[in-house]
Amino acid sequence: MTVGVCYFPEHWPHERWERDIEQMAEAGIEYVRMAEFSWSRIEPESGEIDLSWLDEAVSLISDHGMEAVLCTPTATPPKWLIDQHPSILQEEPDGTPRHYGSRRHYCFNSPAYREETRRIVSTMADHFADNPHVAGWQTDNEYGCHETIRCWCDDCATAFREWLRERYGDIESLNEAWGTTFWSQHLRSFDEVDPPRHTAAEHHPSRLLDYYRFSADSAVDYNAIHADLLREADDDWFIAHNFMGDFDSCDAFRFADDLDLFTWDSYPTGFAQDRRPAAASPNELRAGDPDQVGMNHDLYRGAKQQPFWVMEQQPGDVNWPPYAPQPGEGAMRLWAHHAVAHGADAVLYFRWRRCREGQEQYHAGLRKQDGSPDRGYHDADQAATELAELDLDTVDADVALLHEYDNLWATNIQPHAPDWEYWTHMRQYYAALRARSVQADVVHPDRDLSGYDAIVTPALHLVDDALAATLEGAVEDGTELLLTVRSGTKDRANKLPGVPAPGPLTDLVGATVDQHESVPERLDRQVTYDGESYEFRTFAEWLDTDDATTVGSYVGGVGDGRAAITEHEFGAGHVAYCGVWPEADLADAVVTDLLDRADVGYSERLPTGVRAAQRDGYTWVMNFTSDPVSVALPEDARLVVGDDTVDAFGATVYEGEAADLSVDEG
Amino acid sequence: MTVGVCYFPEHWPHERWERDIEQMAEAGIEYVRMAEFSWSRIEPESGEIDLSWLDEAVSLISDHGMEAVLCTPTATPPKWLIDQHPSILQEEPDGTPRHYGSRRHYCFNSPAYREETRRIVSTMADHFADNPHVAGWQTDNEYGCHETIRCWCDDCATAFREWLRERYGDIESLNEAWGTTFWSQHLRSFDEVDPPRHTAAEHHPSRLLDYYRFSADSAVDYNAIHADLLREADDDWFIAHNFMGDFDSCDAFRFADDLDLFTWDSYPTGFAQDRRPAAASPNELRAGDPDQVGMNHDLYRGAKQQPFWVMEQQPGDVNWPPYAPQPGEGAMRLWAHHAVAHGADAVLYFRWRRCREGQEQYHAGLRKQDGSPDRGYHDADQAATELAELDLDTVDADVALLHEYDNLWATNIQPHAPDWEYWTHMRQYYAALRARSVQADVVHPDRDLSGYDAIVTPALHLVDDALAATLEGAVEDGTELLLTVRSGTKDRANKLPGVPAPGPLTDLVGATVDQHESVPERLDRQVTYDGESYEFRTFAEWLDTDDATTVGSYVGGVGDGRAAITEHEFGAGHVAYCGVWPEADLADAVVTDLLDRADVGYSERLPTGVRAAQRDGYTWVMNFTSDPVSVALPEDARLVVGDDTVDAFGATVYEGEAADLSVDEG
Amino acid sequence: MTVGVCYFPEHWPHERWERDIEQMAEAGIEYVRMAEFSWSRIEPESGEIDLSWLDEAVSLISDHGMEAVLCTPTATPPKWLIDQHPSILQEEPDGTPRHYGSRRHYCFNSPAYREETRRIVSTMADHFADNPHVAGWQTDNEYGCHETIRCWCDDCATAFREWLRERYGDIESLNEAWGTTFWSQHLRSFDEVDPPRHTAAEHHPSRLLDYYRFSADSAVDYNAIHADLLREADDDWFIAHNFMGDFDSCDAFRFADDLDLFTWDSYPTGFAQDRRPAAASPNELRAGDPDQVGMNHDLYRGAKQQPFWVMEQQPGDVNWPPYAPQPGEGAMRLWAHHAVAHGADAVLYFRWRRCREGQEQYHAGLRKQDGSPDRGYHDADQAATELAELDLDTVDADVALLHEYDNLWATNIQPHAPDWEYWTHMRQYYAALRARSVQADVVHPDRDLSGYDAIVTPALHLVDDALAATLEGAVEDGTELLLTVRSGTKDRANKLPGVPAPGPLTDLVGATVDQHESVPERLDRQVTYDGESYEFRTFAEWLDTDDATTVGSYVGGVGDGRAAITEHEFGAGHVAYCGVWPEADLADAVVTDLLDRADVGYSERLPTGVRAAQRDGYTWVMNFTSDPVSVALPEDARLVVGDDTVDAFGATVYEGEAADLSVDEG
Ligand SMILES: [Mg+2]
Ligand SMILES: [Mg+2]
Ligand SMILES: [Mg+2]
Ligand SMILES: [Zn+2]
Ligand SMILES: [Zn+2]
Ligand SMILES: [Zn+2]
Repeated sequence: MTVGVCYFPEHWPHERWERDIEQMAEAGIEYVRMAEFSWSRIEPESGEIDLSWLDEAVSLISDHGMEAVLCTPTATPPKWLIDQHPSILQEEPDGTPRHYGSRRHYCFNSPAYREETRRIVSTMADHFADNPHVAGWQTDNEYGCHETIRCWCDDCATAFREWLRERYGDIESLNEAWGTTFWSQHLRSFDEVDPPRHTAAEHHPSRLLDYYRFSADSAVDYNAIHADLLREADDDWFIAHNFMGDFDSCDAFRFADDLDLFTWDSYPTGFAQDRRPAAASPNELRAGDPDQVGMNHDLYRGAKQQPFWVMEQQPGDVNWPPYAPQPGEGAMRLWAHHAVAHGADAVLYFRWRRCREGQEQYHAGLRKQDGSPDRGYHDADQAATELAELDLDTVDADVALLHEYDNLWATNIQPHAPDWEYWTHMRQYYAALRARSVQADVVHPDRDLSGYDAIVTPALHLVDDALAATLEGAVEDGTELLLTVRSGTKDRANKLPGVPAPGPLTDLVGATVDQHESVPERLDRQVTYDGESYEFRTFAEWLDTDDATTVGSYVGGVGDGRAAITEHEFGAGHVAYCGVWPEADLADAVVTDLLDRADVGYSERLPTGVRAAQRDGYTWVMNFTSDPVSVALPEDARLVVGDDTVDAFGATVYEGEAADLSVDEG
Repeated sequence: MTVGVCYFPEHWPHERWERDIEQMAEAGIEYVRMAEFSWSRIEPESGEIDLSWLDEAVSLISDHGMEAVLCTPTATPPKWLIDQHPSILQEEPDGTPRHYGSRRHYCFNSPAYREETRRIVSTMADHFADNPHVAGWQTDNEYGCHETIRCWCDDCATAFREWLRERYGDIESLNEAWGTTFWSQHLRSFDEVDPPRHTAAEHHPSRLLDYYRFSADSAVDYNAIHADLLREADDDWFIAHNFMGDFDSCDAFRFADDLDLFTWDSYPTGFAQDRRPAAASPNELRAGDPDQVGMNHDLYRGAKQQPFWVMEQQPGDVNWPPYAPQPGEGAMRLWAHHAVAHGADAVLYFRWRRCREGQEQYHAGLRKQDGSPDRGYHDADQAATELAELDLDTVDADVALLHEYDNLWATNIQPHAPDWEYWTHMRQYYAALRARSVQADVVHPDRDLSGYDAIVTPALHLVDDALAATLEGAVEDGTELLLTVRSGTKDRANKLPGVPAPGPLTDLVGATVDQHESVPERLDRQVTYDGESYEFRTFAEWLDTDDATTVGSYVGGVGDGRAAITEHEFGAGHVAYCGVWPEADLADAVVTDLLDRADVGYSERLPTGVRAAQRDGYTWVMNFTSDPVSVALPEDARLVVGDDTVDAFGATVYEGEAADLSVDEG
Repeated sequence: MTVGVCYFPEHWPHERWERDIEQMAEAGIEYVRMAEFSWSRIEPESGEIDLSWLDEAVSLISDHGMEAVLCTPTATPPKWLIDQHPSILQEEPDGTPRHYGSRRHYCFNSPAYREETRRIVSTMADHFADNPHVAGWQTDNEYGCHETIRCWCDDCATAFREWLRERYGDIESLNEAWGTTFWSQHLRSFDEVDPPRHTAAEHHPSRLLDYYRFSADSAVDYNAIHADLLREADDDWFIAHNFMGDFDSCDAFRFADDLDLFTWDSYPTGFAQDRRPAAASPNELRAGDPDQVGMNHDLYRGAKQQPFWVMEQQPGDVNWPPYAPQPGEGAMRLWAHHAVAHGADAVLYFRWRRCREGQEQYHAGLRKQDGSPDRGYHDADQAATELAELDLDTVDADVALLHEYDNLWATNIQPHAPDWEYWTHMRQYYAALRARSVQADVVHPDRDLSGYDAIVTPALHLVDDALAATLEGAVEDGTELLLTVRSGTKDRANKLPGVPAPGPLTDLVGATVDQHESVPERLDRQVTYDGESYEFRTFAEWLDTDDATTVGSYVGGVGDGRAAITEHEFGAGHVAYCGVWPEADLADAVVTDLLDRADVGYSERLPTGVRAAQRDGYTWVMNFTSDPVSVALPEDARLVVGDDTVDAFGATVYEGEAADLSVDEG
């Protein structure tokens, strides 16, 4: 497995390049990503193209035995281009333009910008076609960063109308699908549909959901411009994009056809602070939350069910989270191991060297601004050495975690509770699996599910008959299924069906939802399950069982005694329905019962911050805490890296099964 | 007394209507409200009117022995109408339009929209004139919902100038009234007055207060268009509007001349969460705060001093509050009894059936989306049966609580403390009365006050000589008066008079305000009153007594020893002045002393969440808590509904006096 | 020393003026400030000038033995002027105008407004030239109040481009200085630079810093229009401006050449609430934080290293802070003494009489709205009497606290922690000095520093070689220097140099910063210093010592054992570097060690809220708490005001040294 780095030669004196690149090679780096954000260096004046500097950098990289990964520079159009076409700028819901002066200041639906994109991408693609030192391309950078997937400009209005026309054919089909009788929202033509701009009250949820879909598709269409031109120029290149973690508005799965390789940008100590409702613990401030990072690894692996890359790996302290504590000693190495254990084939640290100018001066690199090694450099070097030994097949997961962005959007559009948050709900189940050292693929429901022993589907909100039939088929054939709150509540248009939840899933579940409620902390939030008392949070459903058996019931509250969790035998399998958002202990109980039924092996329940992951016969034990832990390895384990004491922020690797280990926190 | 329901036949298949309506009749429902928000169903294309569907619905309702209440559909103009006249949209203070796509997307002062309103209202009025099955009309829906009373558009600018011209005649009168020498705010003509758009610092408080008055009047003028056309068409109809709870910007009292019937929309568990600074307790999350709901009942009853309706009664869990816990078992019945006890003649649940489309899918109905009974259905049915037995005169209140929206606006414009909130201050006194089972009318100071034994006037901020004379007359004749903080501080233009507070009320109070202060929780907030120590909050005044007697004094703080509460004999009555915002125990002490002086009977102090109310010889004991309570009924009480144990979320009704009961919490 | 008052004759009936002015004189007042905000009174219609009323007021003041201070009335242009030139209005970053209707509704860079300013200022200046009763002028009022230093309008765009052109000469120099290769921010001409309007992500920190500098310079240029015209008219007048406390965007130091006298507006109980992250204590709610107020006194004294004035002194409770508790008994007198002790020559209470109209009706005056004395009147009277006895030279400070607004801006632009706040960091050191009764000048680094025994430089972020050389020279000559976190991190363009921090200060410090981190409360925040354990907060640097000695080290956390605080002998002096933001105990330890090395005398550590200050041989002991304190005076002390028990909110003055006293809290 491979380590790489992100490099911006244009930020440094020309005479320094060779030494930088030499030092990369010495550290065991194999891939160097370049040219991101470099449009004004490539084309300082409209039409004056200069790629000689990049040629030279690629050539130096190749001289030192490494390969280049290039980026299309479209995330930052130069000022002269914006001045030529001011309509390129995005607009907020209140009409305020998102001006030039930071990045991502363009609309995916701007015809002018699509034209400029074609021009610059084809220029670069043609220039580097057949260059053997360029391994592949990253398109643009982090689509949607800084909330830029969605735009409310006039170009988007036009494009949205066209998108609706293609989806619905005639306006009455749209009226029927959305349900526009409510509040006089009937539309006479597609021209009457605007982007959901500022209104006095909330928008129609079906209109909003379609706007979210349209916006996600706009990024996909825009990306296809890059992918098609690059493929046309040289079909040996891989085409990749670097996605983000716990990201809401951009549907990664929709890019699967256009990309050869999924990559994402992993900043564990930032994510623990800025995209989870929970406050970061001291350990998480030092090394991140392994389940938050791991679920993103498994999502981008699941997007094509093949190995992925970490295109940007946090190298030390970074500029954008609220606080920037120094990562734990060794954390930068730990993260590389963690990524590889979850299926990464390459981990590229961002960036080689701390930048002396602009917005990211407070972002560490592997090297300091004076070129000397920074804290991450030694970690990266060690990781490169250790990982180079391993040549691994992809991760083999027994469990699928079904995920569709449409469910995220629909439930977040109508959260029904201030603390409903789709990723957090999903992660509760994911963490229960990972605490038991079970591998899971995060996959779209339309994937082939036949290979999985168990399926967990958190908040499968929007369900049609076809999806219900797929799941019925899987369970009939013996797959064990766990469904959770809010499933089967709406149709694909975000409209209630004429029957109670779980709608088309009712046969499968053998129960229906009589009532749902959202519950703040100061109300009763207890259930019994299997004779034990457990806590839940946020969301609760009172179930009416038909063929299903009640296995969990409410204690206290208005729903006292009502069914909360059910199980249902269905063909060769079973369906469990968990009608509460479980706290961690209940999630563990429900998930281990599922694994038992599915005959999936699992470990003892690992302590918080300690995780094991298995790939191609190897198991990683990873310690995201500031205290060493002792591991009782399986008898037949062969140590590959480290030993049975895993240091603070350290990792041990052995050949053997993850399910057989146990960990002693003391 | 009567139960009704809100129904949207246009949301359901035609073939379903008859069964829905049949089921309403079976549940004892007598009124069915319809046509709200239905403009695009009535006029799908400009000028193409279709009222046949509504004719049919009215006819079915009449066939089943019920009456229709119709609504003018103006709260939601169709998209084609907005596109014809984009100027109809309101604007925010920063100029952002409030676009089409939710509701209430029109400006009250748009000449174009007033014309369209005349057209659609007269079309409907003429169509249904003399239809014996239409009992009356609701105009529009919830004026001002989603903060739409106030708008900052150009039509409003023009209308504001005209309103000022009519109020002040010439610009120098305005300059004099407002006081525009301050900060060079002198105006040379009415054309120089703009709406109070975005500024660097705060606005002139007199200009703001007049803008608030103008905005309230704009809604009144707009409503008069409806009322006049409907009356002209058929003067047998009642004309009503459905107001909201704890609502700030819309002055309900100003509609009194144009409406025959006041109604409001009551959502107890929502209001406890979203329009009170205090956090909702577990009981309030399940059933609401009876004093919050009750004060709104008494406000809309007081607006015409006659019975009111609840036009929308919460039917179960609803979509818009932060959390949506399930109401307590029986709460939907309790709320109907509570409304009737406070003077409602009809309670209409909102809505018949959960809507399958649009913004309110997470809002329960009496029936689920599949047509089966939901939790509220059985409660509504029981309430209908129990209330049908009763035929009651209006509530007879011994106490008046004076309220004028101008005082709310003026004190909230200059709150002088982050936790000043007019309704909360007023409710402190209201709750003290209600905990003693005393009935109160919430009335405008210009009403005939001669029938009341006692008057409480919270924060009577803007006072002129005429009002002072009225109150002097009442007290001279023996009425007992209680005035509170911030009274008599400003003139009607929101300007300080040349004398200290309470200004024109000084003779009455026999004391003046030497200093006022606002005090956060961490400062001393204690007084002694009648030898006991009590807590106060937020606002304190140091009083200089003239003829008055000091009955309460500060303990601790900079005002230590200064007078805080005074009493003054005046003619045949007395005036108490409470110069602090009392916490509940002090409010009880001050209010019971007032009642004693006024010889108004009262009960023991009831526990939180338990309330009694009396109407026409009947007393309701209502339990808004999750534990049953035992009631010691008066000896001569005759039980009508329930018995002397009031269930959790239950109600008991007996013939007899409220003042004679006591409640045992255990 | 002198007491004055702010008076608005135009707010009161003409017949009242004489009595008001007579009463001022009786209270010992010597200066009366007038004409602020009076433009529409002076010029009610365009071109119709009326100054007769002001002539009369000046004349009355002179008749009573006082002098007038006049203000240019430009903070509030009349509505007719705005309507003539709507472009005068400022704009927000999203383009929203800041409309007429409050104050400060003009852009410093509006050519139209500069022309109008010239017209009105020269009219007034010429009118009052050679009037012996006008002592001097205040220009405008509180530049930048309500966040109005920065504007994003088109006039500002033009002016910013011009400012950059003058600063950088050619665009490539700007590209080089800012570093615009990052994110394709290369600019081809100055015309491509816009104000930093709304963008999707953060702005370039160098562009922002220059916009902040430009904005500050715009106010300076605008002020120079006033100053030049006034000087030209009568060069006997002093020219002053009234600045604000803890103010961020306006660089007071840049006005030093154009002003004869620095003044500021002091509102202790407001500032304790609204411009410090820490919550105000009960004592601070009653009297303010003496170090917050004191540091502003010392800043405006330091701006010209000469006595200053308090142009507005809080007179009682005021309208704009969150809460308005009554100040402690005597606090208004205490504040006057505090100001004089810190170097004020005059303290003008704001305002004479509570205003009956407009935005500040809830702002107390020395007199109530009815003209009777308010709480502050007696305090002011007493202060006037006591201070009139004293005729003092300016404060003589042994310690300089270096401050440059550029460092405030740069660190706040990239705070790197939610709780980084420059003034708060600086005040930690200031408070340590003041708790030891040490006088400090807050001065710009380019001042002559040779007279100081010790220099403290908090967060000296932007450093060039010239500044480093200045400091080296001072230390070589024996000055003791204390540097703190974030020093020497950036060049003057807000760009990282090619070497680690402290960059050009490295020789001086004898150590470099290996790593920095920001740390929330839940991480380890301990160091040992001199064998004792201490707490720090927010920001920490791990130091690599070269010639320096480690005197403080981290305990716990990832940096455990690393150097945190160093000392370095350099020529005849020493340099201490404190690589953490110290909590109060550590700040005291570090500062007293500095004072010992510098041989500066200091007192025992005074309790919170009790402070001593020395001026011209006199020492004030001031008690900002609600309990009296006993003072052990130096043996040779001669009491001038009060005695050795200092009352709650009281002050004692004696001839003698501050360093020799001690205070007993009991
Ligand atoms: Mg990137
Ligand atoms: Mg309604
Ligand atoms: Mg001022
Ligand atoms: Zn767009
Ligand atoms: Zn309007
Ligand atoms: Zn401007």
